[in-house]
Amino acid sequence: MNDPAPKITAKSDVPFFDEAFHARLEDLIRWRRDVRRFVADPVEDALIDEIIGLAALSPSVANSQPWRFVKVADPDRRARIVENFEACNKDALGDYDGDKANLYATLKLAGLREAPVHLAVFCDTQTAAGHGLGQKTMPETLCYSVVGAVNTLWLAARARGIGMGWVSILEPAKVTEILDVPAEWSLIAYLCVGYPEEEHIDPELDRAGWQKREDAQKFIIER
Amino acid sequence: MNDPAPKITAKSDVPFFDEAFHARLEDLIRWRRDVRRFVADPVEDALIDEIIGLAALSPSVANSQPWRFVKVADPDRRARIVENFEACNKDALGDYDGDKANLYATLKLAGLREAPVHLAVFCDTQTAAGHGLGQKTMPETLCYSVVGAVNTLWLAARARGIGMGWVSILEPAKVTEILDVPAEWSLIAYLCVGYPEEEHIDPELDRAGWQKREDAQKFIIER
Repeated sequence: MNDPAPKITAKSDVPFFDEAFHARLEDLIRWRRDVRRFVADPVEDALIDEIIGLAALSPSVANSQPWRFVKVADPDRRARIVENFEACNKDALGDYDGDKANLYATLKLAGLREAPVHLAVFCDTQTAAGHGLGQKTMPETLCYSVVGAVNTLWLAARARGIGMGWVSILEPAKVTEILDVPAEWSLIAYLCVGYPEEEHIDPELDRAGWQKREDAQKFIIER
Repeated sequence: MNDPAPKITAKSDVPFFDEAFHARLEDLIRWRRDVRRFVADPVEDALIDEIIGLAALSPSVANSQPWRFVKVADPDRRARIVENFEACNKDALGDYDGDKANLYATLKLAGLREAPVHLAVFCDTQTAAGHGLGQKTMPETLCYSVVGAVNTLWLAARARGIGMGWVSILEPAKVTEILDVPAEWSLIAYLCVGYPEEEHIDPELDRAGWQKREDAQKFIIER
């Protein structure tokens, strides 16, 4: 058993982030987009490992690190993922009427065919790491830890000019089966990754007239 | 209805992030810590609004922006949150035996009494924004969107020298009641926020000998 007493880190080791960095970080946060239009250029595997390495530095409940990153390269598996997306998307379209249905049909909701890299990110819901700490009243924090890692991955990717799109119009059980991963792995995100065809600062669904962005102040309340 | 055709953004508008920025971003990701030891100094409310504003630029399924940020300032409500944490933590301790129980008892799992700012982050599970897009087969992506925003908030806070700790040893239904927010708001994260007493690069639970960090390569598989 290690000594649980806190070790003080010398203050001189600690980085200071100045206003110029704040401005660049804000640029990064603003320019990170959900990308569904990719050019054909490949993304080096070492670059994918680099951004996964940064994602794995994200916080996780109990330091459980429940993230599992699956690089999906097999053409047959990819084709079956595309097929599942198309079936789910067709089904979802049926939920809208009139103008909303017409608009939905024009939206580009995945870039699975064009993206050079497919990355499926799972949560190992049965991991022993972390010994269950912090998960008794909020077990969902295990999966939430993986979502945080996806967010870090996204920012790290964008900083390198790589675009990412999160595709949620898929059946998780089907994806688990197609990728032949353990049944206790819960699908968190299926990601299309590649270099973007275009870059823009406005959310894809805002520019398409589906849902506009609101002012953040609207979401703050006091108690 | 807006025109759904993509508008090309002039390439000259697009920021480029160089290697120096990559290195600073890596510093930020590495030095972002789950902080539970705070000094008494207050954090300016304008600074909290600034980091919430950045968090609200995070991706959300259907651009639904389901995040709701609750600043908890009322001493009575805070005291009831601390009380709930203490009851849950005592109950959780009962799940461990021997050395693990002894170690658990020494861990500092919240900084609720010391933190100058309490921030509860919820997901409005009944929001009409985004019209349900992308949530038919994976409805959990609505709550996942809020988790991503918490991750952005954390990085934005750390860049300003502000520490944040995510407390999950709480009963969500009880928190909803104590804070008197709509029952359909799902608690995602209860956060202690303030300036840290110390800064260190190793995870709190790693240094305490509870769970060490693994190499990211261990979490990558190919299909």
